[in-house]
Amino acid sequence: MEKDDLKTAQLKKEIIQIFKKFGLSYNHALISTNALINAELVGAYGHGLSRFKMYCDRISKKVINPRPKIKIKRLSQSISHIDADDSIGFVAADIAIKQAIKNAKKTGIGLVAVKNSGHYGLSGYYAEQAVKKNLVTMIYTNAPPAVAPHGSLKSLFGTNPICFGTPTGSKIPFILDTSISMINRGKIRVAAKNNQKIPEGVALDKFGKMTTDAKKALDGVQLPIAGFRGSGLAWMVDILSGVLTGGNHAGRVKDPFDDFSGPQNIGHLFITFKTNLFVKNYNNRIKENIEIVKKLPKTKGLKEIVFPGQNKYKRLKMNLKKNIKISKLIQKDLEILKK
Amino acid sequence: MEKDDLKTAQLKKEIIQIFKKFGLSYNHALISTNALINAELVGAYGHGLSRFKMYCDRISKKVINPRPKIKIKRLSQSISHIDADDSIGFVAADIAIKQAIKNAKKTGIGLVAVKNSGHYGLSGYYAEQAVKKNLVTMIYTNAPPAVAPHGSLKSLFGTNPICFGTPTGSKIPFILDTSISMINRGKIRVAAKNNQKIPEGVALDKFGKMTTDAKKALDGVQLPIAGFRGSGLAWMVDILSGVLTGGNHAGRVKDPFDDFSGPQNIGHLFITFKTNLFVKNYNNRIKENIEIVKKLPKTKGLKEIVFPGQNKYKRLKMNLKKNIKISKLIQKDLEILKK
Repeated sequence: MEKDDLKTAQLKKEIIQIFKKFGLSYNHALISTNALINAELVGAYGHGLSRFKMYCDRISKKVINPRPKIKIKRLSQSISHIDADDSIGFVAADIAIKQAIKNAKKTGIGLVAVKNSGHYGLSGYYAEQAVKKNLVTMIYTNAPPAVAPHGSLKSLFGTNPICFGTPTGSKIPFILDTSISMINRGKIRVAAKNNQKIPEGVALDKFGKMTTDAKKALDGVQLPIAGFRGSGLAWMVDILSGVLTGGNHAGRVKDPFDDFSGPQNIGHLFITFKTNLFVKNYNNRIKENIEIVKKLPKTKGLKEIVFPGQNKYKRLKMNLKKNIKISKLIQKDLEILKK
Repeated sequence: MEKDDLKTAQLKKEIIQIFKKFGLSYNHALISTNALINAELVGAYGHGLSRFKMYCDRISKKVINPRPKIKIKRLSQSISHIDADDSIGFVAADIAIKQAIKNAKKTGIGLVAVKNSGHYGLSGYYAEQAVKKNLVTMIYTNAPPAVAPHGSLKSLFGTNPICFGTPTGSKIPFILDTSISMINRGKIRVAAKNNQKIPEGVALDKFGKMTTDAKKALDGVQLPIAGFRGSGLAWMVDILSGVLTGGNHAGRVKDPFDDFSGPQNIGHLFITFKTNLFVKNYNNRIKENIEIVKKLPKTKGLKEIVFPGQNKYKRLKMNLKKNIKISKLIQKDLEILKK
């Protein structure tokens, strides 16, 4: 896969310009661009610029609302409900996590539900915001059908990530952001775009046969982790983010790449709470916890036991020093969108 | 495995009597007995009477406090902190879920942390209480070391269950109660007691080799589901239930069967919220969600796609009509304890 060097600042300006051309306000364009660039910098390419053209297409086809009237309904000092008015997901999620942070700072706990939103990229990106404010956070979102419920032959659940973040007493946040599928759909999509194979055991083709062909996997079914356990976790996420919030659920979230027949109406749920509710020395406790795990005997050849989010943080720090590289395919997307 | 018939009511009386003989109040004996019998009735034998003698032994050796002074500290109308004073886990969890229900009924959301508790049996048993009150609930608890963190050769995390419950618009609650290990430690313990084998791929012996010998697995390491994903989820549960609550964490929860050097100080976290915070017709929405999943094309030979908790509920209803059967081993335990 060939990649072009591009200065990050310059690339950011270009993306913002394009989002603005498609009708987003400067502020919304900035929020969305920052999320996309962050995904590139942490190496989560499936949530990065490979999706940029899709977002612009959805705005063009009027299934993302570039000028949403986002309503925040305050149910209590802890609980808020956001109707995102079909905004681009990044903006809805950014407003929601900020509201959840505010609520938790005020009352100890925040619960914020979002409906009429869209794909917002990485849950971990929003979790980081809460962790930086010294909060613990749990984030749930649903997604288009990709994973078959246990016992079924058809996709219905999304890859429905479970996300958990906590301060660690160090600069590096603990961010678990794990889809309940064996592999992220974004990764399959990138593999398909670049004609790469996917690992064995993560997906079936549309006839129910195991496949390593990324394109066939996109037409088929992704497998959940651990059979009925992963299927149950995916179902839980669909309920928390869809049934509870007023968002779409039970397989009704549209695929953003293929289905322009209407908005996605994805739902999200953000839970935040203070770290010092029950103990005075949380940061010391978590620091000690991580230190103890890191000192365990390691498997052969392993240098360090890492906590979730640690590698991503390292990649971000490294990549921030370098010029960003984007593939020819994305370069082409940018040229088309600029016109 | 030979089993004896015993009328459930009679058995209950016997267990309560024994707990009382060991110093529990009638009320605490009743709560604990109900939890143990429920585990038998739903077929979760690893959390049932196979543990009864262990609880009594821990009371005798003064590492469970039979007459605890349990303190409930109210941090706000939503948030409570419980110091269980080394009570038997069932009692701490029963008080905690009832407090979490009360808080959610009052403010929409409840968050209750427990420290200085012990093993409380099935998380799902407490989730059911919240669901019966028409609440959604999430429950976390840690447990003695059983699962090796990803990249490590030594157990540190417990089988740390993730539990989620919701009303379904029908009589049967949706209760996901899944450990993050490939198999429950309780099941391995029962297999070891009955000289049965465990499945391939769920545990390593103490030398790091795959084993199907239940006794060797107890001395070795259980494998987490889905590698680093399951390991991350186990870590999350240890943080939520241990680091946050003031309970033991990072592998310090003692094995209740083997280690009588002190109380377990297990931590639990209970989150509850109202179903109708963000939508008016939650019960219809979840009912529809489940119906859609159930109508999907099924794998060969499967009669019905079931939701988490459905089979357990069925077993309970069936077993309630029959006399309870207990193994010779447990019968022997009872005879010893009665003396």
